[in-house]
Amino acid sequence: MKVFKIPEATVMRLSVYSRHLTQLIGEGVVNVSSGEIAKGVGVSSAQVRKDLAYFGEFGTRGVGYNVQELYSHIMRILGLNNCWNVMIVGAGKLGSALAIYKGFADRGFKVRALLDTDPDKIGTKLAEDLVVEPITVLEERVKDENISIGIVTVPGDTAQEVTDKLVEAGVGALLNFSPRVLRVPESVILRNVDLSVNLELLSFYLSYGTAR
Amino acid sequence: MKVFKIPEATVMRLSVYSRHLTQLIGEGVVNVSSGEIAKGVGVSSAQVRKDLAYFGEFGTRGVGYNVQELYSHIMRILGLNNCWNVMIVGAGKLGSALAIYKGFADRGFKVRALLDTDPDKIGTKLAEDLVVEPITVLEERVKDENISIGIVTVPGDTAQEVTDKLVEAGVGALLNFSPRVLRVPESVILRNVDLSVNLELLSFYLSYGTAR
Repeated sequence: MKVFKIPEATVMRLSVYSRHLTQLIGEGVVNVSSGEIAKGVGVSSAQVRKDLAYFGEFGTRGVGYNVQELYSHIMRILGLNNCWNVMIVGAGKLGSALAIYKGFADRGFKVRALLDTDPDKIGTKLAEDLVVEPITVLEERVKDENISIGIVTVPGDTAQEVTDKLVEAGVGALLNFSPRVLRVPESVILRNVDLSVNLELLSFYLSYGTAR
Repeated sequence: MKVFKIPEATVMRLSVYSRHLTQLIGEGVVNVSSGEIAKGVGVSSAQVRKDLAYFGEFGTRGVGYNVQELYSHIMRILGLNNCWNVMIVGAGKLGSALAIYKGFADRGFKVRALLDTDPDKIGTKLAEDLVVEPITVLEERVKDENISIGIVTVPGDTAQEVTDKLVEAGVGALLNFSPRVLRVPESVILRNVDLSVNLELLSFYLSYGTAR
């Protein structure tokens, strides 16, 4: 398949569309128009068509999209027809919260390991099959569990060190919750998450008084 | 000021620009071009100009933007020249992690109260001035602390009830981390946060093999 430079915003909207389609499937809806999807998620129907057009031709003129087919297609585009094995490094409050975050497992992201350096945290059982392990087992666990995605939830001052270890162990994609700007090789995918961006959207709308 | 319908993606990029400008201020940079901002944050310079154009004329042809002025302007647009008082309802792992998340305070969001129904959690001290309080004080604390933003981190089955209480107490904007779709009056700003969207971006890029 040809690789396009797909805007990140498009990928994020695909996530949103897929959630809406899940709901429609649950309601037994068979066909849906771009206008109906647009209304359901709060974007324009032109945007829906443009987003989907990046990935080829879907739908039938006058009939719209078959809900189940479109859903499967989007999930395949997002790589969610696979299950992804995830390691979290940093078993503080945020790391522990993410380790048991239901939304991850629901979308095929399985947290297989949660590591920390703190002896007080090591051995803590977070779920039936998830116990905090020492960071010394990082490389071994990445290989054993076939980890593709690493989540960095350590404090800023150790974030780069942890990142280097994950990259060296062969983890191809990283989600960084630490406040530090991380350096990774070109081949590694890195995404920084700043949770305050969500609050800033609220602050903007509160200040401007524009509706949702 | 005239209220435009500003795309959410633009607001989120303003957040990103402001962070980059903070860094430039720290480095003592006085003027910056849209091209330099674009390069610094990984978007096109046309995008930077388009985003800023929503809010009027900035910058001087051939000179670019004054870094400090542009920063102040963006912070004002985002409503971050104010400090916002925040209440979190749900002192589980995620709620507790958010309550002490440094990124919030750095951007002017002050978590003034953290509430829960669980007697085992009530009284837990998370920071010097932050102790878990019973949910019965919700209305009183919203008024006393002049809370503008509520964060919902309770389980799905109590999320709507908590939301109703926050709305009734006069909270104008809500961030929902629960998996439940919440109903709020038109006048209340609601944003749902699904942390798995960030992982889905990684999954997409891993599957497509496109670079950052």
